[in-house]
Amino acid sequence: MSLQNKQVLLARRPAGALRMDDFTVRTREFSEELASGEILVRNRFVSVDPYQRLLAGGGDTFTQPVSVGEPMPGWAAGEVIASRDPKLFPGDKVVTYLGWQIFGICRGESARKVGLRGLPLAAYLGVAGMPGVTAYLGIFDIGRPKAGETVVVSAASGAVGSAAGQLARMHGCRVVGVAGGGAKCRHIVEDFGFAAAVDYKAGDLSGNLRKNVPEGIDVYFDGVGGTILEAVLPLLNLFARIVLCGHISTYDRPETPGPKGWDFLLSRRVRLEGFIVGDRLDRWLEALGRLERWAAEGKLRYEETIVEGLENAPAALLGLFQGKSLGKLVVAI
Amino acid sequence: MSLQNKQVLLARRPAGALRMDDFTVRTREFSEELASGEILVRNRFVSVDPYQRLLAGGGDTFTQPVSVGEPMPGWAAGEVIASRDPKLFPGDKVVTYLGWQIFGICRGESARKVGLRGLPLAAYLGVAGMPGVTAYLGIFDIGRPKAGETVVVSAASGAVGSAAGQLARMHGCRVVGVAGGGAKCRHIVEDFGFAAAVDYKAGDLSGNLRKNVPEGIDVYFDGVGGTILEAVLPLLNLFARIVLCGHISTYDRPETPGPKGWDFLLSRRVRLEGFIVGDRLDRWLEALGRLERWAAEGKLRYEETIVEGLENAPAALLGLFQGKSLGKLVVAI
Repeated sequence: MSLQNKQVLLARRPAGALRMDDFTVRTREFSEELASGEILVRNRFVSVDPYQRLLAGGGDTFTQPVSVGEPMPGWAAGEVIASRDPKLFPGDKVVTYLGWQIFGICRGESARKVGLRGLPLAAYLGVAGMPGVTAYLGIFDIGRPKAGETVVVSAASGAVGSAAGQLARMHGCRVVGVAGGGAKCRHIVEDFGFAAAVDYKAGDLSGNLRKNVPEGIDVYFDGVGGTILEAVLPLLNLFARIVLCGHISTYDRPETPGPKGWDFLLSRRVRLEGFIVGDRLDRWLEALGRLERWAAEGKLRYEETIVEGLENAPAALLGLFQGKSLGKLVVAI
Repeated sequence: MSLQNKQVLLARRPAGALRMDDFTVRTREFSEELASGEILVRNRFVSVDPYQRLLAGGGDTFTQPVSVGEPMPGWAAGEVIASRDPKLFPGDKVVTYLGWQIFGICRGESARKVGLRGLPLAAYLGVAGMPGVTAYLGIFDIGRPKAGETVVVSAASGAVGSAAGQLARMHGCRVVGVAGGGAKCRHIVEDFGFAAAVDYKAGDLSGNLRKNVPEGIDVYFDGVGGTILEAVLPLLNLFARIVLCGHISTYDRPETPGPKGWDFLLSRRVRLEGFIVGDRLDRWLEALGRLERWAAEGKLRYEETIVEGLENAPAALLGLFQGKSLGKLVVAI
């Protein structure tokens, strides 16, 4: 017996900004035969995350890039349909790295069984998944803010930024978010409890940021790079830390020079650390346990943008780079 | 009674590259009256160091900038002429921060008595002084190389770089230096024991550096910034460290963008740390003790360029930015 599997493939290496024709959708026969230890999963949500642009680019990335003609890799949440892993059973909800397709087969031990605390399934791709762990380890292991310090978060309404900011706030920090547009800015203050928000689309970013950090910046949690980073650098306090967990503003322009104000890294004795969550698997269990609990208890809030239909995943990823989504972006299939 | 004191003053804020008329020399009466706890010092050597360009610029520096019309601050080595500090006596050799002048008065406790191990006095401004401590703490506290790792040092024939490279070599690392011109490159290999040298003036810096670091770069000790940093970034290994202790290539161009290849800081998970030796006074005693001993035993070698005459200090500083000197640059007075 065989299933029809729909997949989104990388059609070619993108040049510059992503385009719709960088991707293609195909449907093909899919054998559900399992080897010992494997599971067959029916994805319900696939994750759309900024780093997938790097995978598509095929350049120097922190993980295996995707080949042209192959399905787009990515996180997915779904349910087990068949299992030859003695620990997993049909109906179990799992998070895998099966990517942008409806069905997939993987080793049971590479899947994470989820849903015991009753969070909605998509949340395990966001606040209780990789983005949440990125926020948790980025803030606590890399940024290491002290209570009372000022923490600035870029892409603050996004999956990672919104969690990072709330975690810093729960830790006793004054948190200022940078986001694009009035709606996102209101959202992070009213719903996520940031002390202030700065709209990078409203002009005079440096001046507005300065007004909102009267005691300077101790930790900058950065997923964006570019002009926001340039606005942050002169405001850093002595011994500030920069958690460099992304630079979405230049993912499609790898030759872009670094930020103006490089010299502040010396004069303010800054520690800047490039940080990839996949390097710290030994820390995931602690992080996921707390994130899931805090989210279930309502202490850690999250927002989602859910796009319907696997074939719309490419458009969703393009939109992510245009700042169109709010919170965690997932595709429901 | 009074002495005639010659001083080099900052005549104006330099714009761009230093010029001779940014400085002026004056001679004036100097009262040798001491308060309790003070000493009167006759400087024998004054130090010429890159960071003095930042002090003169008056911008965002890690220490007090100098005001126009004031003597240039800086390290100096000299002898006590008169003392109202019970621990110091006329004839004692001391290192102070009395700057570019012949005579000066300071608190006895701010002077460091030197010369017990028989190093020449000028060495306490170099290998057994601030530059040596910068190298020691930069390598061991910030860079933290493991034996067998590859360490690259810029400005490798200079006071800091030559010590940093030798300390890393003594620690069991493979050390590659970057310097300007064949003479300096031969010097760092033949006299300082670097494994290889790359001449940044010889063209194809990236290619030449790549050839000399077949196993990539684990620690980059950087006092230069600019194009050398850009050549280093793509060669960094995962979890590499950058010791950012200067960026002499842009001291007179603070608006210069950061290096191309910023994205490697993320993809290679680099820890970059701005480092000022004056922040770590608690570590100086250990560092100075070892540096002085190793230098006295000949294990740690050093080179000096000695310029005669206080009035030639400005020209010496200009020459430092043109790469004219070898090793530690001091002015004998």
